[in-house]
Amino acid sequence: MAQTEKLDLVLTQLDKGLDTALQRLLDFLRIPSISTDPAHNGDVCAAAEWLRNELEILGFQASLRDTDGHPMVVAHSQPGEGRTLLFYGHYDVQPVDPLSLWDRPPFDAAIQDTAAGRIIRARGASDDKGQLMTFVEACRAWKAVHGALPSGLVLLFEGEEESGSPSLLPFLDANADELRASLALICDTGLYADGRPAITTQLRGLVGEEIVVRAADRDLHSGHFGGLAANPIMVLATALAALKDENGRITLPGFYDGVEELTDEMRRNWQALGFDVGAFLAEVGLKYPIGEKGRDPLEMMWNQPTAEINGISGGYTGDGFKTVLPAEARAKVSFRLTGQQDPAKVRAAFRAHMQAHLPADCQIEFHEHGGSPASVMDTSDPAFAAAKQALTEEWGREAAYIGAGGSIPIAGDFKRMLGMDSMLIGFGREDDRIHSPNEKYNVESFAKGARSWARILAELRG
Amino acid sequence: MAQTEKLDLVLTQLDKGLDTALQRLLDFLRIPSISTDPAHNGDVCAAAEWLRNELEILGFQASLRDTDGHPMVVAHSQPGEGRTLLFYGHYDVQPVDPLSLWDRPPFDAAIQDTAAGRIIRARGASDDKGQLMTFVEACRAWKAVHGALPSGLVLLFEGEEESGSPSLLPFLDANADELRASLALICDTGLYADGRPAITTQLRGLVGEEIVVRAADRDLHSGHFGGLAANPIMVLATALAALKDENGRITLPGFYDGVEELTDEMRRNWQALGFDVGAFLAEVGLKYPIGEKGRDPLEMMWNQPTAEINGISGGYTGDGFKTVLPAEARAKVSFRLTGQQDPAKVRAAFRAHMQAHLPADCQIEFHEHGGSPASVMDTSDPAFAAAKQALTEEWGREAAYIGAGGSIPIAGDFKRMLGMDSMLIGFGREDDRIHSPNEKYNVESFAKGARSWARILAELRG
Repeated sequence: MAQTEKLDLVLTQLDKGLDTALQRLLDFLRIPSISTDPAHNGDVCAAAEWLRNELEILGFQASLRDTDGHPMVVAHSQPGEGRTLLFYGHYDVQPVDPLSLWDRPPFDAAIQDTAAGRIIRARGASDDKGQLMTFVEACRAWKAVHGALPSGLVLLFEGEEESGSPSLLPFLDANADELRASLALICDTGLYADGRPAITTQLRGLVGEEIVVRAADRDLHSGHFGGLAANPIMVLATALAALKDENGRITLPGFYDGVEELTDEMRRNWQALGFDVGAFLAEVGLKYPIGEKGRDPLEMMWNQPTAEINGISGGYTGDGFKTVLPAEARAKVSFRLTGQQDPAKVRAAFRAHMQAHLPADCQIEFHEHGGSPASVMDTSDPAFAAAKQALTEEWGREAAYIGAGGSIPIAGDFKRMLGMDSMLIGFGREDDRIHSPNEKYNVESFAKGARSWARILAELRG
Repeated sequence: MAQTEKLDLVLTQLDKGLDTALQRLLDFLRIPSISTDPAHNGDVCAAAEWLRNELEILGFQASLRDTDGHPMVVAHSQPGEGRTLLFYGHYDVQPVDPLSLWDRPPFDAAIQDTAAGRIIRARGASDDKGQLMTFVEACRAWKAVHGALPSGLVLLFEGEEESGSPSLLPFLDANADELRASLALICDTGLYADGRPAITTQLRGLVGEEIVVRAADRDLHSGHFGGLAANPIMVLATALAALKDENGRITLPGFYDGVEELTDEMRRNWQALGFDVGAFLAEVGLKYPIGEKGRDPLEMMWNQPTAEINGISGGYTGDGFKTVLPAEARAKVSFRLTGQQDPAKVRAAFRAHMQAHLPADCQIEFHEHGGSPASVMDTSDPAFAAAKQALTEEWGREAAYIGAGGSIPIAGDFKRMLGMDSMLIGFGREDDRIHSPNEKYNVESFAKGARSWARILAELRG
């Protein structure tokens, strides 16, 4: 049988089985697997068990693997099915507060017809249960029609992604040989803004720091001491303001070491997206992009590093006014990294900068909150062109290589710990309200997502 | 009878009556006249009534005068007693939270023997019931011994000083002719730090502003939007940091207009105080004075203006980390003013500065929190030398002219609305813990305070 005929049978099978697949997903969504809330520990376990069971039905060797936290679900296809790919997703979900803003109970999953089309409404519908099930359904269809998968597969499902993945690195470390594959497929991203299929080929890294500046050993009266005693808020504001020059460039020495200019090819790719920065900002009530002058907006978002103050507090912040000169002030600061920027060096440069701005009488405390380098995929791997072609055929629109301004550390972890590149393909939409009330996933995303994976598996066959 | 003999009789009378006077003060202190708490409205009224009654007993024509808030107590001595002086104090007190930090119930007033000597322990003991009663007791002794006061007196007692004095200006305006005197005496300040008697001859003014900087219409994800969307915390930090140059000078155009250099005489006065800035700062865990280089520390505290951030908040400030790019950030900023600085001009310059630092997409909101000019008393008025002499004799130590870094707007209000200078004399100590748990007033302050006023009244006799 020709390969296209084999694939056509799989796609037909997926279309026939869509309603059943949706019912399966609703069952999965009804398990409230909120990983950050100990009251839901049993539910998280039940979701893992549900998945393991599904994968066994499909002929995988599937098991729950203990960690210090929630279990990993690991499944292997029968040996001898050629090249091996690893697929990653997570079966835990975000908390649901505030409940009152949901149209229906967040775990009473349902299909609804809305102005935006048919949707699956539930916590986790898009992030990440609906997405990971697109891959599982593609596997099911391949098995149903041909009795085998086109490639060897390892499936890895995590239950702690929404609570910081504390067990992931130890697990990768302890099971590196078992998990190493020729390429990782990660389904936790989205379509491009206009609904075009996309492969995310670069992610920014992240360095988070919390700082506390202290001066006097108590709050002082600003009349009595003002002009003599150091003010930690002013110290903090001055040091943080000095992180950027008047052009928006970050001033830390060596900060831009490792930042790489966009290749001409990727620049053309991004220009072809026709990104409308005005419309993008208008969505949130803004008009004018800030940032370094002379840079393309998508470049600023995806390929340039940032320095942001994510939180600040100090002194009296209640109603009215108190002329207090506070004993301390705090801030949370984060840097998004690109290219080869080294998180440890960025953190060290930031700490040196803060120390250099500290008056003699002040102390500063630093608390580390995560650090991961940027991930830039090597799109010259033929798998990328193949997957791009598969997506283009499924969606009837040219698939795009895009970047992401956020950080998905798993891609960097796979690279660093398993020496494995990742391909990030997902079908979420910007209006999916992940992490917010009324999360949804379009039925179209689910159906075409599963068909996309069926095609990609065909293209990447071992 | 010679004037010194007349005074000696009054002083002897005060000494004899000290225990009774202390009991009277304890009665007064037992009335929980917390002006800011509506639950205590009846108590505030009871304290006013208590005062009116005391003053009537002393032969004053005393009355409660309605305002939109708590009543004023106004008392006039019998006409024909020569030159008229106005005495001001306040009978309301601060809240008492946290109650658990008090050694005894804050309104169960008592005399206690402590390592620091005999003290009166209660909320309001020092601020301001104990202080105002030093003057009332001096009047009582004069009347008791001589049947008359040495000067005509108007007594004005306010019940809203601890809650911002909202009724004071309208009351002064409506009753200007009745209240205008040749000089105001205000008893709401303290001895110099080392216990030396002092007249406060200058107070800094105050301009308070609350600002809110807004950018996007919601909190954004700093990964998604970082680098394109304005960050209100960074905007705020940058604008506030730019309020001072690297030498600690305030950069607002025209800010120093009206700031006056210290006269040689006042500079000599202050140098004679032997202010130990190291010891002063060591009390609160600091070592090095900040502020404009080359200025004397007392000059920085009392005769130079300041810009301080009293509070700041924005973004995520809880435990852990959220990579949020917040919709808004807030700060409370105050300026202490000296000399002839104009509060309205300083406020306008600050607002213009903030506007000038605002990126195109940000909005800023300003909320006014009080504005009062500095008060600088004319010490060439012979009343100052006379009172200084009286204080020196009572305390056996050279009385000092001192400044205060804080703001007591009443002195400026008297000047502006009644054309009347003020003399600020008080007997509080730095360890009185006003506004804090375990407020106290030294019995010595109370006894010598009353004797001081008896002497000052003699010196200023009409």
